[in-house]
Amino acid sequence: MVRAAVIAVIGAGDAPPGVLELALETGREIAARGAVLVCGGRGGVMEAAARGARERGGHTIGILPGYDKRSANPYIEFAIATGMGEARNAIVVGSADAVIALAGEGGTLAEIGFALKLGRPLIALRSWPQLDGLHRADNAAAAVAMALDLAPRRS
Amino acid sequence: MVRAAVIAVIGAGDAPPGVLELALETGREIAARGAVLVCGGRGGVMEAAARGARERGGHTIGILPGYDKRSANPYIEFAIATGMGEARNAIVVGSADAVIALAGEGGTLAEIGFALKLGRPLIALRSWPQLDGLHRADNAAAAVAMALDLAPRRS
Amino acid sequence: MVRAAVIAVIGAGDAPPGVLELALETGREIAARGAVLVCGGRGGVMEAAARGARERGGHTIGILPGYDKRSANPYIEFAIATGMGEARNAIVVGSADAVIALAGEGGTLAEIGFALKLGRPLIALRSWPQLDGLHRADNAAAAVAMALDLAPRRS
Amino acid sequence: MVRAAVIAVIGAGDAPPGVLELALETGREIAARGAVLVCGGRGGVMEAAARGARERGGHTIGILPGYDKRSANPYIEFAIATGMGEARNAIVVGSADAVIALAGEGGTLAEIGFALKLGRPLIALRSWPQLDGLHRADNAAAAVAMALDLAPRRS
Repeated sequence: MVRAAVIAVIGAGDAPPGVLELALETGREIAARGAVLVCGGRGGVMEAAARGARERGGHTIGILPGYDKRSANPYIEFAIATGMGEARNAIVVGSADAVIALAGEGGTLAEIGFALKLGRPLIALRSWPQLDGLHRADNAAAAVAMALDLAPRRS
Repeated sequence: MVRAAVIAVIGAGDAPPGVLELALETGREIAARGAVLVCGGRGGVMEAAARGARERGGHTIGILPGYDKRSANPYIEFAIATGMGEARNAIVVGSADAVIALAGEGGTLAEIGFALKLGRPLIALRSWPQLDGLHRADNAAAAVAMALDLAPRRS
Repeated sequence: MVRAAVIAVIGAGDAPPGVLELALETGREIAARGAVLVCGGRGGVMEAAARGARERGGHTIGILPGYDKRSANPYIEFAIATGMGEARNAIVVGSADAVIALAGEGGTLAEIGFALKLGRPLIALRSWPQLDGLHRADNAAAAVAMALDLAPRRS
Repeated sequence: MVRAAVIAVIGAGDAPPGVLELALETGREIAARGAVLVCGGRGGVMEAAARGARERGGHTIGILPGYDKRSANPYIEFAIATGMGEARNAIVVGSADAVIALAGEGGTLAEIGFALKLGRPLIALRSWPQLDGLHRADNAAAAVAMALDLAPRRS
């Protein structure tokens, strides 16, 4: 079986409208391109991206911090209950072929760190201008195209 | 969105033919009943169950011990790369609505322990006769029917 | 530096007086023999064992489920905050050279499973009579002597 | 029991001599001030800091990525074997009352992210000039004094 590419979208659970709109667009693009969305499974950026992906018929995976699967947002198709708290960030990133980071706080910074450490391509979508060495995109379509281009080939 | 029921199948990475046949049947039943399979993502019982589920068009999730998604068996549709080694057992169980345990060694015992602790219904399928307090079934169809019956209602 | 042997004591957070007394004795023996105690850091068996070890001047390490170090019992000298919930059991066992299991529920069963999987010697102290293949002791001194005897040599 | 303050030192496993010297000094200061060192338990900055702390008679805790306790550097007094891979970073930070970050790559960035997320005070010691909102120090004594000052009061 050739597995579909998996793209992580990371960002804050509490984000302003402009960032949520960007997350929604990114989720739509991921599904439109036939890829699977993985995220942290909760609200904010995670919910907006999952909603976008489901609107276009894509699969969505939520990597939850606790053991209660009902804590997933309503657009998560497959809820993974880790019980690991914030350390689940490493699983979100590890399960992706490429990572798109929207503006976020500490949790997002941890995920960027893991992406660098695990060698997952990371695209900053209008975020983290102060960090060097990240790929950058300024709209959702460009970010997803770049993610798919940088993801390792599957067979 | 109403999420499909998720059934974990747990058992050894190295198992005799009779146990593998039972795992294959269990995977087929899970998919035939419209449920999703979650397992440890590697060989043996995990691979046989995933193969059975895919044969019937079901979704399969593999919770891997390492960070390399290519270590998943070929019947895993969604590979979750935890980097957690054997502690991933807790995530396999936590992500399930009910758990079916086939004969296995230490790893399986840990998963049974987590199921009891996290309150996930557990059905022993021709396994662990020495442990009290487990639900028991002696064929795949009965085990899956019992798992779906014991799983919490979704909405 | 030659590191001291580390002995895990595992058992329920809520246990009857006889079991707590046994845990206290086990903690005292561990410290009297110059070994370090590791446990889950909370109440019940974990607290009794840690109290025993501290009474004899031993070091105690508590592997906590959450991120709040203040949740450790008062006899924990070094609190490790994992944020991993029940999956921390794997770390309790992995950090020990040998494991002593007192009567307990599902959580303890998970720890026994991990000990078998990770190859850590496990001594059942008046517990789990229904499981085959465990080392057995019927008092604290015998259990600790056996644990130190089975622990791998350090250099 | 009043637990001693615990200070995490984070930084690369492979670091230039100037950074290692700074780590050694930081470890010495931590022990001289009566605090406990926690780190990732391996080489480079982690080993230099642990060596410094042991030279001054301090306690050292190493949070290891794997299950093999022998992978700890020789200055680790208490080795915690997590089997969690890089996600152990969250435990290093969670177990500390304050965190001192020396120059480092992705792994260190993940730890900074966790510190921000978990609310652990973080002092950048001649590192990460591009990140806003971190406390900053330019020598080991100042960093440790600041860490102890920012750590929550214990009772």
